[in-house]
Amino acid sequence: MADSLSKGTLYGLGVGPGDPELLTLKALRILKAAPVIAYPAPEKGPSLARSIVAPHLPGGQTEIAIRMPLDWARFPLQEVYDRAAREIAEHMAAGRDVAALCQGDPFFYGSFMYLFGRLAREWTVVVVPGVSSLGAGAAALGAPLAARDDALVVLPAPLPEAVLEARLEDCDAAAIVKLGRHLPKVRRVLKRLGLEDRARYVEHASMENQRIRPLAELGDGEAPYFALVLVHKRGEAWRGA
Amino acid sequence: MADSLSKGTLYGLGVGPGDPELLTLKALRILKAAPVIAYPAPEKGPSLARSIVAPHLPGGQTEIAIRMPLDWARFPLQEVYDRAAREIAEHMAAGRDVAALCQGDPFFYGSFMYLFGRLAREWTVVVVPGVSSLGAGAAALGAPLAARDDALVVLPAPLPEAVLEARLEDCDAAAIVKLGRHLPKVRRVLKRLGLEDRARYVEHASMENQRIRPLAELGDGEAPYFALVLVHKRGEAWRGA
Repeated sequence: MADSLSKGTLYGLGVGPGDPELLTLKALRILKAAPVIAYPAPEKGPSLARSIVAPHLPGGQTEIAIRMPLDWARFPLQEVYDRAAREIAEHMAAGRDVAALCQGDPFFYGSFMYLFGRLAREWTVVVVPGVSSLGAGAAALGAPLAARDDALVVLPAPLPEAVLEARLEDCDAAAIVKLGRHLPKVRRVLKRLGLEDRARYVEHASMENQRIRPLAELGDGEAPYFALVLVHKRGEAWRGA
Repeated sequence: MADSLSKGTLYGLGVGPGDPELLTLKALRILKAAPVIAYPAPEKGPSLARSIVAPHLPGGQTEIAIRMPLDWARFPLQEVYDRAAREIAEHMAAGRDVAALCQGDPFFYGSFMYLFGRLAREWTVVVVPGVSSLGAGAAALGAPLAARDDALVVLPAPLPEAVLEARLEDCDAAAIVKLGRHLPKVRRVLKRLGLEDRARYVEHASMENQRIRPLAELGDGEAPYFALVLVHKRGEAWRGA
């Protein structure tokens, strides 16, 4: 994280899980002052990270949409991030700060790490932590993520079925993230371990389309990418003290 | 979470890891509007949760300090939380909202769950998620907590040595929390697993007294309670894409 008074700073701004009011005061201050904002976006259409901060944008900022190609084989992500990093570096070289918007927390499974990996050695990079989807999911479900001396494991649902099963066996509480098309696999594992009654499901926590559903009612379909399953093996442990 | 228009609401307010600017806009709004605030505090002296929001307090609020007795054998925590819950319920019965301040996130190893367990069945309780110490620690250390499909485990340091070792063996990344007097044990485990070079240490992340130190320099002493060790087995995985 080199520094130079004549150059701009890259901010990795955690903008929280979806509710624009879950932005921190620090992220808001930096967001409003930055002449340039950058954000991940689908190949076509609006960026979720940008939509979270839209009510707070002062207008007049240069915007860099980092568009994720659908066809990763033909358009490698490597090149997408290389190009975005170059564009961001040009702004910093000209003395302009850049705020890179990151849904949730930049360092909790965030794509910001790919910009960080490319830029942090030569430029000043400041990470502003944000509220993660886990905290928002637990708040929505009205149940602690972890209590007392729980070993809590966070498991991305794309992991192989055997890995998910082994890790779920060895913990006190779990959060399963990135569900999407992996939901049926996750449900199979929970069922085999007898944990279905201990698991709760929420999608789009803290967003306008937040929805809580019993796992048993979900059928064999997919879940949204921004869906979570929280598992508490010891049940309502917090009632103890 | 029962509801009644004539009664007050209990808010579990995540106030973030320490930097007063890491409060969310939502927590700030609720904090300023609440006629009553409650917070954990040591037996004697100031409350850390209250100190985090002190710059934002409008003044004139009723304050409930939930003081934690040093001698848990003689003064059980059960009674402390029973009494605090009764006092909070009296305010709600009189139509007053109560904001319970929680360092970090209320449902991430937070003592708020003890109030939640006592009050959520009969009263309206709303949890406002906050930035956790994990996000603040990763931001301070300049290293992602978890990337791609990492299985991330959060381990309270008071867990038995054999449990810490087994869980650390089976993950891709780990965050070890509640270090305190357990630091020498954690260092032994990291050393046995050959993970000392993959582990980073930070105390009081995001606070004025934040300090990053190499694990090897820590000696055999204790750590503060608000210290973290983050472990990344795959090193700088984010440089890959």
